Amino acid sequence: MEARPLDALNRARDKKVIVECKNGRQYLGSLRAFDIHINVVLDDTEERVDGEVKRKLGTAFIRGDTIILISPA
Amino acid sequence: MEARPLDALNRARDKKVIVECKNGRQYLGSLRAFDIHINVVLDDTEERVDGEVKRKLGTAFIRGDTIILISPA
Amino acid sequence: MEARPLDALNRARDKKVIVECKNGRQYLGSLRAFDIHINVVLDDTEERVDGEVKRKLGTAFIRGDTIILISPA
Amino acid sequence: MEARPLDALNRARDKKVIVECKNGRQYLGSLRAFDIHINVVLDDTEERVDGEVKRKLGTAFIRGDTIILISPA
Amino acid sequence: MEARPLDALNRARDKKVIVECKNGRQYLGSLRAFDIHINVVLDDTEERVDGEVKRKLGTAFIRGDTIILISPA
Amino acid sequence: MEARPLDALNRARDKKVIVECKNGRQYLGSLRAFDIHINVVLDDTEERVDGEVKRKLGTAFIRGDTIILISPA
Amino acid sequence: MEARPLDALNRARDKKVIVECKNGRQYLGSLRAFDIHINVVLDDTEERVDGEVKRKLGTAFIRGDTIILISPA
Repeated sequence: MEARPLDALNRARDKKVIVECKNGRQYLGSLRAFDIHINVVLDDTEERVDGEVKRKLGTAFIRGDTIILISPA
Repeated sequence: MEARPLDALNRARDKKVIVECKNGRQYLGSLRAFDIHINVVLDDTEERVDGEVKRKLGTAFIRGDTIILISPA
Repeated sequence: MEARPLDALNRARDKKVIVECKNGRQYLGSLRAFDIHINVVLDDTEERVDGEVKRKLGTAFIRGDTIILISPA
Repeated sequence: MEARPLDALNRARDKKVIVECKNGRQYLGSLRAFDIHINVVLDDTEERVDGEVKRKLGTAFIRGDTIILISPA
Repeated sequence: MEARPLDALNRARDKKVIVECKNGRQYLGSLRAFDIHINVVLDDTEERVDGEVKRKLGTAFIRGDTIILISPA
Repeated sequence: MEARPLDALNRARDKKVIVECKNGRQYLGSLRAFDIHINVVLDDTEERVDGEVKRKLGTAFIRGDTIILISPA
Repeated sequence: MEARPLDALNRARDKKVIVECKNGRQYLGSLRAFDIHINVVLDDTEERVDGEVKRKLGTAFIRGDTIILISPA
């Protein structure tokens, strides 16, 4: 059992996650890094809109204040 | 009787809650963790739009600034 | 006479209040708790849209930054 | 002559003011309290939309970040 | 020559300025006070929309986060 | 070579810059001052919309949180 | 392996990156500087909308709170 939300992100480190953003886009990739602002870095990133792959991005730094949700993929 | 809003979240820990977000989506799941920014982590999460289940998400980290309301489900 | 806005919320504690949110919804309930971010907890909460009851929610934690106004009901 | 904006609010204390909000609503009432976030408390509050009285609210706590302007009524 | 933006506001003190807000409105008046949040107080304030005078407001406290631009009138 | 973004603004001091704002407007002028919030002061300011000159403003204080981009003109 | 998101930006320094903004615009250029607010400075900047080059900007200071994503180009 965990006490703090960031523990859940820590357990997801180096695993595949989906990051949902306020503009309706989703980013799938391996969670490499995050901080207390929920800025995240993904590797092997795929951008999806409505479930459809739009772009492959490699490494992506995503600013925390655009993020709604992070979940294991 | 409680003095601080976070006490209410504390009493809801490990219970089923509904989290309502600014984009009109709802997340149902067991409240595992939260912090002072109201970042929350749910387990066994279901995403709903207009009361209809859209996705099953397992664990979900939801960023506090997207949240309107949290209530026992 | 009072000097600080939170004194007014303190006087409303355990009384029925209406909480108006930026998304046009209103929440009626007994004010159980609040903090300096104006996060509030209501009991016996009713959600209203355009004056019409939409849902009964029991206890509801409402995040302060979604709130426009709090007033005795 | 005054040096700081809050001095102007202080001079308006217990006088009738109009509070204009980002959602287009106006609140008329007696300014009872304010703080550095510009959270305000009005007494004998009237809500107006396009100059028309919509509701009488008694005491109203208005969250500062929804406010555009405060002016003597 | 000046080093800090607030120096420019200081030089405009007690002079006529135009304050442009995010909602498209303009406020013309004498700059009486400002602070580091760019909260400002104007005297003899006129509200304009599309260059047309809409209202005379006397003293107006304008919350900084609604302001885009301040310029001598 | 520079390490911090504000160094780039410092090099642009007293030179002509274009400031792009979130509401789609552009301000052209000589960069006189800026601070860590990216509040800026321009002299000999021209407001442009879609590349067209709309107004001449002289000195303009622009609040940082409305700014997207600053670039030499 | 890296622990913090800013390490990823540090590795991208002086390399070509794409910066995606909340208004749908993209900026391509060499990453010269960034700070903890994710304010960035690009050199040899190209502005793109829907993948199409709109403008060449030389050096561009981009305010962090308008940024969604930064990725190697």
